[in-house]
Amino acid sequence: MSINEEQKQEIAQLKQQKFQTSRVTSAAAEKILYEPIEVLDYGFVRLIDYMGDDTAITQAARVSYGKGTKSTRNDSGLIRYLMRHRHTTPFEMVEAKFHIKLPIFVARQWIRHRTANVNEYSARYSVLDKEYYIPKIENVAQQSDINNQGRGQVLSEAQALEVMKILKDDAERNYNHYEDLINDEDAPVARELARINLTLNTYTQWYWKIDLHNLLHFLHLRADSHAQYEIRVYADAILNIVKEWLPITYQAFIDYRANSFQLSSQQIDYIRKRINGEEVNFESSNMSKREWDEMQNILVNK
Amino acid sequence: MSINEEQKQEIAQLKQQKFQTSRVTSAAAEKILYEPIEVLDYGFVRLIDYMGDDTAITQAARVSYGKGTKSTRNDSGLIRYLMRHRHTTPFEMVEAKFHIKLPIFVARQWIRHRTANVNEYSARYSVLDKEYYIPKIENVAQQSDINNQGRGQVLSEAQALEVMKILKDDAERNYNHYEDLINDEDAPVARELARINLTLNTYTQWYWKIDLHNLLHFLHLRADSHAQYEIRVYADAILNIVKEWLPITYQAFIDYRANSFQLSSQQIDYIRKRINGEEVNFESSNMSKREWDEMQNILVNK
Amino acid sequence: MSINEEQKQEIAQLKQQKFQTSRVTSAAAEKILYEPIEVLDYGFVRLIDYMGDDTAITQAARVSYGKGTKSTRNDSGLIRYLMRHRHTTPFEMVEAKFHIKLPIFVARQWIRHRTANVNEYSARYSVLDKEYYIPKIENVAQQSDINNQGRGQVLSEAQALEVMKILKDDAERNYNHYEDLINDEDAPVARELARINLTLNTYTQWYWKIDLHNLLHFLHLRADSHAQYEIRVYADAILNIVKEWLPITYQAFIDYRANSFQLSSQQIDYIRKRINGEEVNFESSNMSKREWDEMQNILVNK
Amino acid sequence: MSINEEQKQEIAQLKQQKFQTSRVTSAAAEKILYEPIEVLDYGFVRLIDYMGDDTAITQAARVSYGKGTKSTRNDSGLIRYLMRHRHTTPFEMVEAKFHIKLPIFVARQWIRHRTANVNEYSARYSVLDKEYYIPKIENVAQQSDINNQGRGQVLSEAQALEVMKILKDDAERNYNHYEDLINDEDAPVARELARINLTLNTYTQWYWKIDLHNLLHFLHLRADSHAQYEIRVYADAILNIVKEWLPITYQAFIDYRANSFQLSSQQIDYIRKRINGEEVNFESSNMSKREWDEMQNILVNK
Repeated sequence: MSINEEQKQEIAQLKQQKFQTSRVTSAAAEKILYEPIEVLDYGFVRLIDYMGDDTAITQAARVSYGKGTKSTRNDSGLIRYLMRHRHTTPFEMVEAKFHIKLPIFVARQWIRHRTANVNEYSARYSVLDKEYYIPKIENVAQQSDINNQGRGQVLSEAQALEVMKILKDDAERNYNHYEDLINDEDAPVARELARINLTLNTYTQWYWKIDLHNLLHFLHLRADSHAQYEIRVYADAILNIVKEWLPITYQAFIDYRANSFQLSSQQIDYIRKRINGEEVNFESSNMSKREWDEMQNILVNK
Repeated sequence: MSINEEQKQEIAQLKQQKFQTSRVTSAAAEKILYEPIEVLDYGFVRLIDYMGDDTAITQAARVSYGKGTKSTRNDSGLIRYLMRHRHTTPFEMVEAKFHIKLPIFVARQWIRHRTANVNEYSARYSVLDKEYYIPKIENVAQQSDINNQGRGQVLSEAQALEVMKILKDDAERNYNHYEDLINDEDAPVARELARINLTLNTYTQWYWKIDLHNLLHFLHLRADSHAQYEIRVYADAILNIVKEWLPITYQAFIDYRANSFQLSSQQIDYIRKRINGEEVNFESSNMSKREWDEMQNILVNK
Repeated sequence: MSINEEQKQEIAQLKQQKFQTSRVTSAAAEKILYEPIEVLDYGFVRLIDYMGDDTAITQAARVSYGKGTKSTRNDSGLIRYLMRHRHTTPFEMVEAKFHIKLPIFVARQWIRHRTANVNEYSARYSVLDKEYYIPKIENVAQQSDINNQGRGQVLSEAQALEVMKILKDDAERNYNHYEDLINDEDAPVARELARINLTLNTYTQWYWKIDLHNLLHFLHLRADSHAQYEIRVYADAILNIVKEWLPITYQAFIDYRANSFQLSSQQIDYIRKRINGEEVNFESSNMSKREWDEMQNILVNK
Repeated sequence: MSINEEQKQEIAQLKQQKFQTSRVTSAAAEKILYEPIEVLDYGFVRLIDYMGDDTAITQAARVSYGKGTKSTRNDSGLIRYLMRHRHTTPFEMVEAKFHIKLPIFVARQWIRHRTANVNEYSARYSVLDKEYYIPKIENVAQQSDINNQGRGQVLSEAQALEVMKILKDDAERNYNHYEDLINDEDAPVARELARINLTLNTYTQWYWKIDLHNLLHFLHLRADSHAQYEIRVYADAILNIVKEWLPITYQAFIDYRANSFQLSSQQIDYIRKRINGEEVNFESSNMSKREWDEMQNILVNK
């Protein structure tokens, strides 16, 4: 992680400030507020601000004058009901703001989630830090044989080290040229132009604010085995924050979203028959091979 | 305003709760938190929660590790700069949540602002209160002669009272029938069906959450003389909250948005000539009559 | 349906106009273009314009220089894959524009779908037609005993007729008063004010434009048994248009969305055990009663 | 521009296909449909599909059963009125779909316009072409002295050539390494990982679909002197398409948006005084220096 002394002090100052508020406040969220959570080699996630907690969801669902429901037990029942039936608007009533440092290729996947607010560090205006992501040995992998857009087997240590060296050398050389260009004494090249020489693993940073419904959608897609490893570790870090801050919502999300499985019309037929004791084979299932395999993996082969 | 004893107590409880927080906190916003502000005869606006203050805007604009800028003076300069140059994303980093009671015809205009989160009281699920908006004498006006979608001259007291009586009688009769239908002992009619008998001035309520950029856009359009009176009074109430909570942003909004005027290409020509001492008349201005008049009103006739 | 002679002629003129285009064109969509499809007593849905067809989805998914894929068979395989794996962006590349006449209480549910473009007929600017929705006898139902926000048993014919009479009398009286107010010879009341006397079953109309991904989301929620009858009939009418215009997408939507069922983590456990021949009862299932019942209905009791 | 023979044929086939349609059709748009317009060294913009023309705007504004208004003259008057008064929803009723090839650093600025639909070529799934943007001599410039985020004076030819050489060598070396990694015979590295070695000037491509209101907002910000040159040339190319396709809207956009100037409250005061013959100096103007200068530039010094 790359936080210098001055930045550490700024963060410490924010953590030490104590105000009195009548707003909904989460003791668990207060504990992690402002604190950088390390992700990858130079990246981090910091929770900068939050609005609401689990009770704010039920309060909004009931369009309440006071608190959400009378008891935590009722809050839990209602939140699980809302999650299961995809009543999404009450979850939009909770909001989180993060400060995130991340490689540009991760930022490019991230920004596809459009319903969020973003302020990115401007490389037209400012100079980027000399920081670029290099994977660890255990994350250098081959193209997958079965998944056209994923990783398969890990490379041997020797091969991995070679890949890492290429990535490091190229990123470093390109950064050094970038630095030379913008610092040229005679004719400093415009920052907006010089930065095009940087590699996609260069780190950027941004403030990112999002409501809980859209955050959970992000987590559902990105804290998932199909997501690229380098964005998944960010999603995992944020999911941990959600777990602390909103324990009821977190559990409902795990049960009804993260660990759920959506049956197609054909798969419903299949299950009805299996439960009735009939045998069904692939040929008579009306499913594609991949559909069949996915279902077998989740419902049968465990 | 229509808040019963139980609701008053719920509100008082929320106001009395005091938590310690390290989040950005606005003393001025804390004062008005949860408090209903009366609007129209039965309506209200309540600030339920907020995220950020003026410094949160500069903090995001700078993608800062600590606070926004070093001083209030710098915060002000930067915020005014951002507002003037329409750098809108830092304003999205502040968020407000409101509880609002409002007539349905106002709600229909309001909801056209799509970039916001809404939870409305459900008339399929619950019974609506017996509350409908009746304008005051001074707000009962004729169709405008000059503005096809606005009000003109106020009616005489006698005429106004007659209009008010019609509105009241019809709303009351329709509400009573609604009540009869859903309370029928033999066959209580489904609430989702019975409510279609209600008039458009019936009150509904919702939780409404929105970021500051979109809130200011709402206020620009609705706290404006072209907006219908009945939504304008809500916008005015919210603008007052913004004034307390975010004084720097408020002033920048007034100077660069609310009291601004956008010159067309033709109007720029006109002004250049006038400043150079040339006389320009309507015929040679290349403007439509309405364009010409609007400009004269704002730039010349004051 | 309420379309006068002049309007019929305008529609006929649009249908007769023939242009040559190189754009993707759907013969099936051309047939239904502009034609009003009757919904409820005075409502309708008209497809006004469309962009793309099934091949436009695969074309976008492949970021293609030419057409989508080489064959219809491949288009189908890819579209079904995209639908199943919730790769939603290619479906956003198809767009539809509708002209819809609908009661205001339906419009209020409809507009909650925010990612769409809307131009509504303005009752501040224009006079609304004398048209209000009255349910047919077979649609006048009691409040449901089991669903807090739905209808249950249909009323007896005598009771239904009584309900219908109340709705009709109240809507008519209120409309007549509205008309009196805006037509008063001495002091015509402002339209924006007079219209607040109208009932929620009064018809309005709008242009509604939406991309296919968001349209399918709308249809998933509104062409569903949990939706209120009066919006469901609109969704059904639009679903029929989709079926003609985009047959491959339609079938994928039916198989993987409309007729799908999302298993929770607990329900996956249940099914694994049942398939393995174990008996599981409600008590040991870790499900709520409602969750259990829903699953039994869909997977077991058929 | 980088379009190979096979792609040229695919494009030619699309252009040759002729269908009959009753949809609103623009002869001018048909001419440019599918045709790649060259931008930068390897980039292009292609109009892939469109919905509507100028008349579709007035048709929607009037919630019409037939065409927009009775005459082109009326269409023009109404469109100019809508543009001037920021009645934005009728412009949302027109839609365009583009295929765009662009450098990644341009794509990163572009994607900040969130209200649009995007399908990007996936570098996890596919191999990127060996194409990277190198500026022309006349576009290699120094950091601006006055604008913190822009370019100033052009470099000498010798210096520019040196910068271009660095950019070219680094991009080429990094691309070659990328290619080596994914093509390694023993252990081909996963594409999603190897691509992080590429430079930010590498070309990507996407399908981009957007409604006219949001497109004009994009053009207002990006076809502007404050935008980075490399995105401005794309915006200029699209603005030319709009000019052909929607001539009335184009002219209204130029007059009321592109060539407009928004006066602050303080600037309105200034102009009133100047028009009344009073002299006002900076000190008494209540403006910041930059605000004063911008106004002088536009209103006085021409």
